[in-house]
Amino acid sequence: MRIPMATALSPASSLRLKPLSSLRFFSVYRQRTSPCKLPANLKTITTNHFLPPKPHNRYSIPVSFFYTSSSSALSVTRKNRRSLCTIVAGALSSGEAVEKIEKQGIEFGEKVGEFRKRLRVVDIKGGPDEGLDRLGQTLVVKGWVRTLRAQSSVTFIEVNDGSCLSSIQCVMNSDAEGYDQVESGLIATGASIWVKGIVVASQGSKQKVELQIEKLEMVGRSDPSFPIQKKRVSREFLRTKAHLRPRTNTFGAVARVRNALAYATHKFFQDNGFVWISSPIITASDCEGAGEQFCVTTLIPSSPEAADSRVDAIPKTEDGSIDWSQDFFGKPAFLTVSGQLNAETYATALSDVYTFGPTFRAENSNTSRHLAEFWMIEPELAFADLNDDMACATAYLQYVVKYVLEHCKEDMDFFNTWIEKGIINRLSNVVEKNFVQLTYTDAVELLLRADKKFEFPVKWGCDLQSEHERYITEEAFGGCPVIVRDYPKEIKAFYMRQNDDGKTVSAMDMLVPRVGELIGGSQREERLEYLEERLDNLNLNKETYWWYLDLRRYGSVPHAGFGLGFERLVQFATGIENIRDAIPFPRTPGSAEF
Amino acid sequence: MRIPMATALSPASSLRLKPLSSLRFFSVYRQRTSPCKLPANLKTITTNHFLPPKPHNRYSIPVSFFYTSSSSALSVTRKNRRSLCTIVAGALSSGEAVEKIEKQGIEFGEKVGEFRKRLRVVDIKGGPDEGLDRLGQTLVVKGWVRTLRAQSSVTFIEVNDGSCLSSIQCVMNSDAEGYDQVESGLIATGASIWVKGIVVASQGSKQKVELQIEKLEMVGRSDPSFPIQKKRVSREFLRTKAHLRPRTNTFGAVARVRNALAYATHKFFQDNGFVWISSPIITASDCEGAGEQFCVTTLIPSSPEAADSRVDAIPKTEDGSIDWSQDFFGKPAFLTVSGQLNAETYATALSDVYTFGPTFRAENSNTSRHLAEFWMIEPELAFADLNDDMACATAYLQYVVKYVLEHCKEDMDFFNTWIEKGIINRLSNVVEKNFVQLTYTDAVELLLRADKKFEFPVKWGCDLQSEHERYITEEAFGGCPVIVRDYPKEIKAFYMRQNDDGKTVSAMDMLVPRVGELIGGSQREERLEYLEERLDNLNLNKETYWWYLDLRRYGSVPHAGFGLGFERLVQFATGIENIRDAIPFPRTPGSAEF
Repeated sequence: MRIPMATALSPASSLRLKPLSSLRFFSVYRQRTSPCKLPANLKTITTNHFLPPKPHNRYSIPVSFFYTSSSSALSVTRKNRRSLCTIVAGALSSGEAVEKIEKQGIEFGEKVGEFRKRLRVVDIKGGPDEGLDRLGQTLVVKGWVRTLRAQSSVTFIEVNDGSCLSSIQCVMNSDAEGYDQVESGLIATGASIWVKGIVVASQGSKQKVELQIEKLEMVGRSDPSFPIQKKRVSREFLRTKAHLRPRTNTFGAVARVRNALAYATHKFFQDNGFVWISSPIITASDCEGAGEQFCVTTLIPSSPEAADSRVDAIPKTEDGSIDWSQDFFGKPAFLTVSGQLNAETYATALSDVYTFGPTFRAENSNTSRHLAEFWMIEPELAFADLNDDMACATAYLQYVVKYVLEHCKEDMDFFNTWIEKGIINRLSNVVEKNFVQLTYTDAVELLLRADKKFEFPVKWGCDLQSEHERYITEEAFGGCPVIVRDYPKEIKAFYMRQNDDGKTVSAMDMLVPRVGELIGGSQREERLEYLEERLDNLNLNKETYWWYLDLRRYGSVPHAGFGLGFERLVQFATGIENIRDAIPFPRTPGSAEF
Repeated sequence: MRIPMATALSPASSLRLKPLSSLRFFSVYRQRTSPCKLPANLKTITTNHFLPPKPHNRYSIPVSFFYTSSSSALSVTRKNRRSLCTIVAGALSSGEAVEKIEKQGIEFGEKVGEFRKRLRVVDIKGGPDEGLDRLGQTLVVKGWVRTLRAQSSVTFIEVNDGSCLSSIQCVMNSDAEGYDQVESGLIATGASIWVKGIVVASQGSKQKVELQIEKLEMVGRSDPSFPIQKKRVSREFLRTKAHLRPRTNTFGAVARVRNALAYATHKFFQDNGFVWISSPIITASDCEGAGEQFCVTTLIPSSPEAADSRVDAIPKTEDGSIDWSQDFFGKPAFLTVSGQLNAETYATALSDVYTFGPTFRAENSNTSRHLAEFWMIEPELAFADLNDDMACATAYLQYVVKYVLEHCKEDMDFFNTWIEKGIINRLSNVVEKNFVQLTYTDAVELLLRADKKFEFPVKWGCDLQSEHERYITEEAFGGCPVIVRDYPKEIKAFYMRQNDDGKTVSAMDMLVPRVGELIGGSQREERLEYLEERLDNLNLNKETYWWYLDLRRYGSVPHAGFGLGFERLVQFATGIENIRDAIPFPRTPGSAEF
């Protein structure tokens, strides 16, 4: 073990003297008399004091903490403190500050250590050689025990750190340091451990390399009540353990693919010159229409345990209405259902923007397709029409799916085997095939001609039902994503651009196999008179939309955009059937735990 | 003008025949008898029908829409429909589907056009040659008029498309096509236009190149009431025009830098193996303590105009309390104040994670530093201590600041000139200098020795005030970011790891010049008994924290993380003084417009 010299030299009594870059947690404070007042009978489950300090630390420790900008290396002993700080100050920009600090004789301040990327299991096993390039190396792995198999002469421990689906197989002989902990039965599923060992070729067929353990230390025990044991548990059960389910293969893989989809989303739009905009979450602007919105208020006392969560404590006006003037925002406020209208304000200034943030629906839908809280991606393109919009949506979907197929191979193989057979083929088709577009009118005709009975009758003017959408994409076009465009205006939102036929609007829905509608978009009505007329016809209050209408008063441009429910995309890309398993902490009617 | 052949050939009466890839908006429907029922006296402000169709379209139009996978090129006339669709189906994966489609004789479906990156002003002027490499090229620019100066023989129009701070100077002679629109006075500040011209060397000193206009078309007029005219308007005024302010230099630059900071954040964490986690926005888990939380409910009718927003319409139990069982989540639910506890659940499964999402405080603070809704970045590192945490926070801040200095040069020059003189120097220091760390105890001693009167007295055990924090970073350490660590446990949150001295916890605050505290973090208490003891001492209900405590029951590991208010980072990186100008649509007491 190597302790920075100055720390070793420091008198323990000085408040100003402390370990400089790391290690304190494991060694230095232990050298002092601990004034900790915890009762003596408390049992520490994590056993850091047993740990070998150096390798247990996450990043390698700067051995020297001398300021490299200094010509003479100075150790930070009490005696040298002043000189050090002069140098610190000298490295700063303000000459005045240097003088001041010198005058005050400040003796404080040390350099922050260097950040290094952690060695992860994926770094060991994830390369093209699957670890063979590391044969003979001595490595440290930290993670959680997935399984332990004790045979007569050797014990196999699968250690997972979440960096990839694979665990690393660690092989331990009875003469290795720390074997007593295996014997004592502490190293059980769910426990966290630290192991040091040599990379050797594996005898097994499941992996190319394994770790021959030289030393093992327990980090944190796992109580025998650990609910995620080897036997498979249902996803319904795991929803009640949302804090532990990422430790399973399925939810670890979903989390990594979800992450890859999110990052690919940013990459796609950034590479194409779009600016990310945070649309507001709370809004008192009632533009999207009410009915399915959550109210956000401070009128109701915010602590459920407070005695004053009484209805008659809510401020009211003389006529018994809620007195909104006393609410936080001075009027009713809601959670947003879409950032689109806000995104339009930025698109008509920066040309191309996108949002990626949470949106909300207070819809009482207990289905496998609905969440009360979900993330939306809403790009908005200026100087663009519906064709540009469809082209962008298609390019986007192909990009993110391709990204996941390339960057999450192991996780996708897992889904292909355990969640949805053939998903890799299905997704590869999305990347490679041309997307098909057809008008709503054509879609209706196609459905009417279909040799199939639908539960909901098909008729021009009615919205397409899920069964219709899935028939189109899964059967009629054999698994190819299909964009249906030019819907009847009566079934679409007020802001969609009216087509010249007077009956339809420039809307589009992208339908994909299994999920149905994945993306919905439109060209926006950029003509002030048409938009005002539409608001009037729908009995919507134009005053409410003053700022939205302003965009049509001042330099209006043709523009278009689309919206994508991110969790639907996760479902689409993983094959996960229930949308509650596509987000870490799902919010649904009656459920907002964790 | 070039119209896809099949469209030209299509009989206008067929519902299935429509323009195939683009142009419809500008030309094709006009060839039909328009059934549009809008009143004849409506005046169209946007004048798309005057526009030259081809260049006005954003992306170049696929001239051929033949399926390239087909060996014989087939145009999509009525006659050929069937053949085409056979090919579409043939390109799909399911042989069965092909057969079915052929049997049904489906005649629908066309290819979606190709998505192309738009030519932006930044693409023209943003390169190292500042446009000189494009001399002689004929280009189309679409954007908004910033200024128009008419001289006797020539007119100068500055066109901005938001892709960069610079506008492109367009020079127009009186013989150019569309000059009548200039003469008529329609081309005013705020109007959107389309111009085609040749890149020529500029006579002016402000730019290397300009566009010699061949043709100009108005896209959307700007009403003379356009509030953002050339004369400078205050930022207070612009907050009331949040939908138009991105069209100003300052707010365009803030939006681009904000975007760069967000993307750099993702890049930094992704490059270091962190997984992005979406922590929940709505939470019924009262872990963070109440008092400053917004309540989320459907008990209050969500439409402000509804007649039933009466207090006595809120469901109540027999004793007059609010009947939470009838609320959407079956119990009181709130907007999150932090995603940290949720992030810990994923860090103890995937090792390294980060959140980047909105958080909320119902704090009645009308200051230039507080928002009711703001975005937070909260990384959480497993197998990490406070030193790792400080190292990560430092590396992160240096990375994103460096990214912005490199990628937003023009915007940063603008801030350096107009918003905060010297900001580039200040930020360069952050990238280049070593960050300093010192303990809270040292910080107190430093403040006590300071040759300065503070408004708030300094005493060990009290929290540092903004004046103290700014003294430390701005004066004592001459503008260098400083991390203060090991705070008294009484002034810090329950989850922070207790140090062995029994008095302090492993907390850290990063202080930066101008902003004060930018980052706050800690090592988390991973020892179950210590954490339970702390909850008891603070009279917090352990039942509420069951899942958080579970993380310490099952494979607990040392872990640490930090939180960063994204808008504070935007302030730090732009010099913008009021946090309401660092987010598109600020939410503050009494204000949730747009």
